[in-house]
Amino acid sequence: MSDLKLVGKSDARVKTTFKAGNIEIGKDFLMIAGPCSVENEEQIIQTALKVKEAGANMLRGGAYKPRTSPYDFQGLGRRGLEYLKKASEITGLPFVTEVIDTRDVYLVAEYADMLQIGARNMQNFSLLQEAGRAGKPVMLKNGLFSTINEWMNCAEYIMKEGNEKVLFCERGVRTVETATRNTLDLSILALLKQYSHLPVISDPSHGTGKIYLIEPMSLASVMAGADGLMIEVHISPENALSDGDQSLTPEQYRCVCEKVVKTKQFYDSLQFRGKI
Amino acid sequence: MSDLKLVGKSDARVKTTFKAGNIEIGKDFLMIAGPCSVENEEQIIQTALKVKEAGANMLRGGAYKPRTSPYDFQGLGRRGLEYLKKASEITGLPFVTEVIDTRDVYLVAEYADMLQIGARNMQNFSLLQEAGRAGKPVMLKNGLFSTINEWMNCAEYIMKEGNEKVLFCERGVRTVETATRNTLDLSILALLKQYSHLPVISDPSHGTGKIYLIEPMSLASVMAGADGLMIEVHISPENALSDGDQSLTPEQYRCVCEKVVKTKQFYDSLQFRGKI
Amino acid sequence: MSDLKLVGKSDARVKTTFKAGNIEIGKDFLMIAGPCSVENEEQIIQTALKVKEAGANMLRGGAYKPRTSPYDFQGLGRRGLEYLKKASEITGLPFVTEVIDTRDVYLVAEYADMLQIGARNMQNFSLLQEAGRAGKPVMLKNGLFSTINEWMNCAEYIMKEGNEKVLFCERGVRTVETATRNTLDLSILALLKQYSHLPVISDPSHGTGKIYLIEPMSLASVMAGADGLMIEVHISPENALSDGDQSLTPEQYRCVCEKVVKTKQFYDSLQFRGKI
Amino acid sequence: MSDLKLVGKSDARVKTTFKAGNIEIGKDFLMIAGPCSVENEEQIIQTALKVKEAGANMLRGGAYKPRTSPYDFQGLGRRGLEYLKKASEITGLPFVTEVIDTRDVYLVAEYADMLQIGARNMQNFSLLQEAGRAGKPVMLKNGLFSTINEWMNCAEYIMKEGNEKVLFCERGVRTVETATRNTLDLSILALLKQYSHLPVISDPSHGTGKIYLIEPMSLASVMAGADGLMIEVHISPENALSDGDQSLTPEQYRCVCEKVVKTKQFYDSLQFRGKI
Repeated sequence: MSDLKLVGKSDARVKTTFKAGNIEIGKDFLMIAGPCSVENEEQIIQTALKVKEAGANMLRGGAYKPRTSPYDFQGLGRRGLEYLKKASEITGLPFVTEVIDTRDVYLVAEYADMLQIGARNMQNFSLLQEAGRAGKPVMLKNGLFSTINEWMNCAEYIMKEGNEKVLFCERGVRTVETATRNTLDLSILALLKQYSHLPVISDPSHGTGKIYLIEPMSLASVMAGADGLMIEVHISPENALSDGDQSLTPEQYRCVCEKVVKTKQFYDSLQFRGKI
Repeated sequence: MSDLKLVGKSDARVKTTFKAGNIEIGKDFLMIAGPCSVENEEQIIQTALKVKEAGANMLRGGAYKPRTSPYDFQGLGRRGLEYLKKASEITGLPFVTEVIDTRDVYLVAEYADMLQIGARNMQNFSLLQEAGRAGKPVMLKNGLFSTINEWMNCAEYIMKEGNEKVLFCERGVRTVETATRNTLDLSILALLKQYSHLPVISDPSHGTGKIYLIEPMSLASVMAGADGLMIEVHISPENALSDGDQSLTPEQYRCVCEKVVKTKQFYDSLQFRGKI
Repeated sequence: MSDLKLVGKSDARVKTTFKAGNIEIGKDFLMIAGPCSVENEEQIIQTALKVKEAGANMLRGGAYKPRTSPYDFQGLGRRGLEYLKKASEITGLPFVTEVIDTRDVYLVAEYADMLQIGARNMQNFSLLQEAGRAGKPVMLKNGLFSTINEWMNCAEYIMKEGNEKVLFCERGVRTVETATRNTLDLSILALLKQYSHLPVISDPSHGTGKIYLIEPMSLASVMAGADGLMIEVHISPENALSDGDQSLTPEQYRCVCEKVVKTKQFYDSLQFRGKI
Repeated sequence: MSDLKLVGKSDARVKTTFKAGNIEIGKDFLMIAGPCSVENEEQIIQTALKVKEAGANMLRGGAYKPRTSPYDFQGLGRRGLEYLKKASEITGLPFVTEVIDTRDVYLVAEYADMLQIGARNMQNFSLLQEAGRAGKPVMLKNGLFSTINEWMNCAEYIMKEGNEKVLFCERGVRTVETATRNTLDLSILALLKQYSHLPVISDPSHGTGKIYLIEPMSLASVMAGADGLMIEVHISPENALSDGDQSLTPEQYRCVCEKVVKTKQFYDSLQFRGKI
C-alpha cells in the first residue's frame, strides 16, 4: 500500500467529508437511487419524485452507458443530462451520473453534482485525471477483478490533480459464482476505513444482481461501515432498457429505506468505542 | 439447482433446526469459538473457560489439521479429541472438530457434538457419505473456489445417507485480493436462505484473516441472515501453532459477543415481514 | 517454494523417471487414453484395443467417480477395476485409475499400474499419504483453484511417505471463462520443469472441455515441455455416461496421435541447448 | 456469442489479413519486439536495430504508459512517438504503440503503423470507437478478467466504425497463481480461430512475467495457432524503467526467434488437413 500519499490515512485526517449538492458525503448517510439508464424525460422525473418520497437523498441515472455489445442501448448522452438536471431541479435531489470519455468530463461536470467512474474505466487513467481536474466530487467504482491497492491508487490519480472529493463505491467483484451477478465484498468497506480517510458506499444492485438480496446486503453494508448505498430503482422494472432484473420498484425501495434508516441508527448507537 | 431433493426448499420445510449438544442450531444463535488447533490440555481447557465466559455457546478446536505443507504441525489426533472432550465436560460447552479421513469419522463422532468438513474436503465425497452415516450433526464449509450449487450438492451427499443435521459454514472464497486472506461472501448467507431450509453460519476469521475485520464482518453477517458465527480465539495468539494472526484474545472476543448479541436482537426486532 | 525437500530440484536430480507397467515415465512420451468412466466390460476392452491401435501406451478409465451430484453415475467400483485389468491384460497396456477414498487405496493399488489423485482430492492429505505408502506410481492432478506451490506441497506429502514415483498432471484451472470448461495453463508445465525434477503431463480433455481444442492444445503442450498427454476417448461419445462432450472417437484420437508423435520428434530435434 | 456480425466467422471469411506497414498481418508471421517504454531516443533506436537483426519484423514501445500508481513513470508522450518514428525510419520496421486517451488517437495514428488498446482499456468503449475511426490497424489486448465473448464484442465496437483491421493479442488473464505474473491462456488462440476470422497473436512477456517461460510459451503459442508473437526486449533489462524483469536481451531474443521460425515451418508442414 505504498505511495498513497493523499488517499492513505494519516492521524490528521481520520475521515474526510465533502459536499455534493446539499448532501455532506461522509457525514449524511447517502441514499442514491434511480434507474440504470435515463430513458426519457417522463421516466426520470417520475422516478426522481418516487425515490425522494421513498427516502432517497440523491438521484442516479445513466446518460452514457458502457455496454458489452455495441448494438445495446448506449444512453441518451447530452439529452440524458438535461433530463437528469430537470428531475433534479423539480425534486431538489442532487444527482450522480457516469462519464466514460475524457472529452465529456467538463460537459458532465456542468450538469452533475457528482461524476461516476464505472468499473470498466477504473484504470482509465486519463479519465481519472480529467475527472480530478473538473472540480466536482467523483464516485469511483472498483473494477471487476482489481485489488484494493489498485483501487486506492486510482483514487490517488484523482486526488493528485487537486480534487479531494473522492467517494469509493464497492460494486462487487467477478468470481466463478453464477448464482449472483457479482460477489459483493463487504470486507472491503471495513478495509477502506482502515487504510483511507475517504468515504465509501456499497452498491448491492450490481453487487448481487438479485432483487431479493438487495435488502439483506444493504443492511449488512451498514453494519460493515458503509457511508451510504446506491440502489437501482425503476418505475417499471419489467420495461427497463437495461438492468430491469435487478431494479426495485419505488415501493420495494421504500421498504428497504425504512430498514436502512433504523439499522443506521442502531449502528450509531452501538458506539464503537474500544474497537478491536 | 437441480436434484437438490433434500437440501432444496419446499413449502413444508421453511427452516430446519436440530440439536448439537444442548444447542438448538437454526433456533439458538450459534457462537462457536476456540483455537485453530488443540495444542495441549491446558490450552484448550483455559480457552474453553474463557470463551464461555465471553459469550460462546460452542467450542471449536482442531485435532486433525489439513496443512499445506507436510512439515507443518498436523494436530494431536486422538489425544486432541480427548482434551476437547475434557474441556467440554468442564465447561458444559458442546464442541465441533474437523475430520479429514473416512477412517476417522466414527472415532471423531464418538467424541464430538458436531463434525466439521473443511474447505479442502468439501468435495471429498467418500468423507461426506461417511459423515452422513455417523449420525452426528455435520458442519460443511464451502470450498475455496466452489459455486453455491456445488456446495449444496455436497450437503445433498450427506443428507442422502439419512442425516438431516447439516449446517453450512461460509468461510470465504479465494479471489485475487491479497489484502484479505479470503473474500467472505455474505450474499451466500441470504442466497442459502432462499434456496435451502438448512441453517448457515459465517466464519469471519478464515473469511478475512484480519483481526480488525472480524467485528464488522460479524455484525454484517448477522444482518445478512446468519444463524451463528464461528470465530477463532486463542489465549495467547502470538504463541499459536497455527492461525495466530487471525485469532482474537478472549477479551477481544467478549467485545464482539456483546455487539453480536445486541445486533441479533435488533435484527429480530426489525420483523422482516413484507420482505422483498 | 519453501520446504520442498523432495519435490524441489537439486543439481543431483535434474529429472526423475520411473516405471509404470512397461512404460518409463519421464523418458517414454506418455500417451494415456480411455473413457471417463468404465461402463461395462465390453466398452473398456473395445476402447483399449482401439486406443492401442491409435497410438496410446497407457489406458485410463474411472471405476470410482467423484461427481458433483450424488444422483449421478458413481462408477462400477471393484467391478470396474476388474474390467480394467482384463482390458489391460488383453492389450498389454498398463492402466491408471482414480482413487477417492483412503480405504480403497490398497485395493486399487493391487489392480492399477498407477493411481490417480483427482482435482477435488488434491488436498485430501490422508489420501495423499496413503497413496504414498501403497508403492505404486501416483499421478497427481492440480486443484481447480490451487497455486503451483500448493500443488508441489501435495506431491511432497506423497514423497514424504517414501514414494518417489509422482507424476504431475495439469488439468486446467477454473476461471471466469465459460467458453471452455477450464483454463489449461501450459506455463505450469514449463514452470514445474524449472522447480521440480518430477515429470509432468497435460490433460487437454478436462482442460478445455471442447473436442476441437484438444489437438491444438496437445501440440502446444508438447512444445511447452510436457512428458505426455492424457486424452479422453470413447468408442461412442454420444452414448457416454459421463464427459461425452469432450471425448474423442478412436479415429479422432489416431489423428491427434500422429501429429503428437511428429511434434515430439520436432521438439527433441530443436535441441534445447543454450536455453534462456 | 450473439451479435458478432462483423467479428464472427462466416463461411465467406475464413481468415482476414491486412497490412500494417510492410507486413501482411494474418499472412506473414508477426514478430513484434521492443521495450515496455520508450525511455530516450538512443535506447529505442539501438533496440530497433538489435531486434531487427535478431528477427523481429515490427517494433513496439510505449509512449503513453498506463501505470498502477500516478507516481510511476508515465511515458514520454509525443516525444516518445517521435523517437519511435525515427527508429522505424532507420530500421524499416513498422511500429505499434499504445493509446490510452480518446483525445490522442489521431495523434498516435499519425505516427504509428498500428494502435494498441491495452488490457485496462479493453472496455473503454469510447477509445475503441475512436480507434475504429482513425483508420489504422488496431491491436486489441484482452482484459485481465474478461471473457472471450466480451473481448470479441470489443472488437465489434472497432469494426462497427468501419475498421476491419483488428488484431487480437492474448496477454494472459489474472488468476490466483502468484508464480507467474498472469496466466497465458493459449486455448484462447485456438478458440478465436474457431469463432472469428480475425488474426490473433500471443504476448508471453506479459502473459508469464518470467524470462525463462518466454521461449516455451512462444513455441507453444505457434502450435496453438498464433499468427505472431509480441515479446519485450530491452538492450539493458536491469536498467529498464518498467518491466525489466520480464524483458529479454537482444541476444536472448535472437535464440527465441530462431526456434520460433523453425517451429512455424514445422507447424505449416503438419498440414492441418482432416482437423477434428
